[in-house]
Amino acid sequence: MSYERQRIHRMRGYTAGEQPLDATTIKLNTNENPYPPSPRVAEALARFDVASLRRYPQPTADALRDRIAARLQLAREQILITNGGDEGLRLAFTTFLEPGDAFGTTDVTYSLYPVLSEIQGCSVAIVQLDSDWKLPRDFAAQLNARRARLCCLVNPHAPTGALTAPDQLAAIARELDGVLLVDEAYVDFVDPRLRHDAVTLVRELDNVLLLRTFSKGYSLAGLRVGFAVGHPELIAPMLGKTRDSYNVDALSQALACAAFDDLPYASDTWAKVRTERERLSEALRTRAFDVPPSQSNFVLATVPRGAVDAAELAARLKRDGVLVRYFAEPRLADKLRITVGDPEQNARLINAIDRALGCSTAR
Amino acid sequence: MSYERQRIHRMRGYTAGEQPLDATTIKLNTNENPYPPSPRVAEALARFDVASLRRYPQPTADALRDRIAARLQLAREQILITNGGDEGLRLAFTTFLEPGDAFGTTDVTYSLYPVLSEIQGCSVAIVQLDSDWKLPRDFAAQLNARRARLCCLVNPHAPTGALTAPDQLAAIARELDGVLLVDEAYVDFVDPRLRHDAVTLVRELDNVLLLRTFSKGYSLAGLRVGFAVGHPELIAPMLGKTRDSYNVDALSQALACAAFDDLPYASDTWAKVRTERERLSEALRTRAFDVPPSQSNFVLATVPRGAVDAAELAARLKRDGVLVRYFAEPRLADKLRITVGDPEQNARLINAIDRALGCSTAR
Repeated sequence: MSYERQRIHRMRGYTAGEQPLDATTIKLNTNENPYPPSPRVAEALARFDVASLRRYPQPTADALRDRIAARLQLAREQILITNGGDEGLRLAFTTFLEPGDAFGTTDVTYSLYPVLSEIQGCSVAIVQLDSDWKLPRDFAAQLNARRARLCCLVNPHAPTGALTAPDQLAAIARELDGVLLVDEAYVDFVDPRLRHDAVTLVRELDNVLLLRTFSKGYSLAGLRVGFAVGHPELIAPMLGKTRDSYNVDALSQALACAAFDDLPYASDTWAKVRTERERLSEALRTRAFDVPPSQSNFVLATVPRGAVDAAELAARLKRDGVLVRYFAEPRLADKLRITVGDPEQNARLINAIDRALGCSTAR
Repeated sequence: MSYERQRIHRMRGYTAGEQPLDATTIKLNTNENPYPPSPRVAEALARFDVASLRRYPQPTADALRDRIAARLQLAREQILITNGGDEGLRLAFTTFLEPGDAFGTTDVTYSLYPVLSEIQGCSVAIVQLDSDWKLPRDFAAQLNARRARLCCLVNPHAPTGALTAPDQLAAIARELDGVLLVDEAYVDFVDPRLRHDAVTLVRELDNVLLLRTFSKGYSLAGLRVGFAVGHPELIAPMLGKTRDSYNVDALSQALACAAFDDLPYASDTWAKVRTERERLSEALRTRAFDVPPSQSNFVLATVPRGAVDAAELAARLKRDGVLVRYFAEPRLADKLRITVGDPEQNARLINAIDRALGCSTAR
């Protein structure tokens, strides 16, 4: 006899990128920061009072909330600390979507969204992106027509790296009849010369939630800390009702504070990733890959026509010790999503690509 | 405009016990272990490679799963590691209960259960416990009549500390038309002379889930690690579908392994808590409190008739620097749940009670 819900029984779970345990594989498949966390994190770890772990953590991670609120010039009540960005997403689904409601997103998008929608018993209203991965002008209208109560956009977009400007997001939010969640997992890697800042939306609109994470920008994917930013009336039910009472452990709170305080260190890793992003994009373009501009820490590269297909190329790279991400979806079938590594990792990747494609690049 | 679901808007969130930040308050309100975690935990912390935090954790905490499986003589597929016991509970609700289904539990019980049921959109089928907090004989029949698809029991029971024997649990599970979740958060504190072992149920029955935690028995409430034990077909959908992909961070995995490996240390804290439980119970009975036998790390004490009422006593104790737990529920209105502390904490509690009740005990 099966006890799980029929809906759960039928669905397929989210497939996370491979996490090999060996240290020699070049991991360019899950968008981790190639640089280690700030030295302040190790110092905070060494200072941590292990005996204090016998007690429950501060339930809402207020020390971290206050730091984030101060930097973003918001109030504590506009910040929610989560167990990685994933928890923020899940809480948005369980808080704002009734089973049977429609959830809105784009094709393509972060592949976790439809999974969370299925668990919550919702239908997915999908809006096709333009040929250059831009949002169509009638994006909000399409979702309103399908009565979407929550809409998730990744910005910079995954898996393409395309950036939507705050003005356009604001126009969507004003028109939308539900909550607009902007998943800013990769926002730290946006070129600062663009002066991209979506926090202004939160000050002006009551239906915008921003999601951020320490996983990428602060090199702490292993620690599981993210945060949501929004109007107090969006934050309050997630904080006080749908969230597990002690969702972020005491050590993670302390280490995330230390990482957040060392903004110069984190900013330096962002700048290095941006430099490498341009170098990697150019190296791929030189090899006839199509690589649209990315504002993220990954690029989406279309494998040249007439070469091997993308899935086969990913398999060859894996055999050569380099993991990249292939998605078996119609619009992504000839593409690979490649995380920007450090100079050595990127060089290893390019060499492996040359070998896989039978080119003559020296090892 | 309110964007949260009506159901969420109407409901009240779970009220966790107070978590003061000062170190001088005697905290006997949230059932933490009075002893610090094993010295092995600090060693593991000192050894931990902080640079590795830039990568995602092993998604399913397999090193810890394997340790637990080995000790319980089960397979890895029967173990799920969770972000505290709370996550295990939440996953059971989202995996086994369709919105609209009935959820079964007892009156009284862990006050989080009805909150999780409300979030999932389920009704609560409540079975009254007998006058001495025992399960009625027709427990499963009552729940089957109300079509409960999931039933949660805390064993040892909270907030009373009463223990139900595995034979009775097995009989309930055999009769029940749904999943029986036995929340064993406090099972480490059961007198070993009772040879209480519910793991046998998991080997024989496909509808039993046990929940355990490192919070109490391993003095790691601050770390947020728990685990579920059950038939592989119960574990698989929670592991692969409803769980957040990286629910337990890398540091928590490493430290929980270290704590679990030091069973002699943990067992010693359990023995000390049992000794203190008997001393505290006696001290309270001497003061005319009714204290039923407890197999947990807390006792439920009925305040003597004619003395102050329980809420007022809790308030007086708090002013005197000792936190205990008062529940404003009909069957608990004249009672306090008091965590068993170490000898000094318990002495401070008893002195504070004597002061609060106007007795003449010397300070």
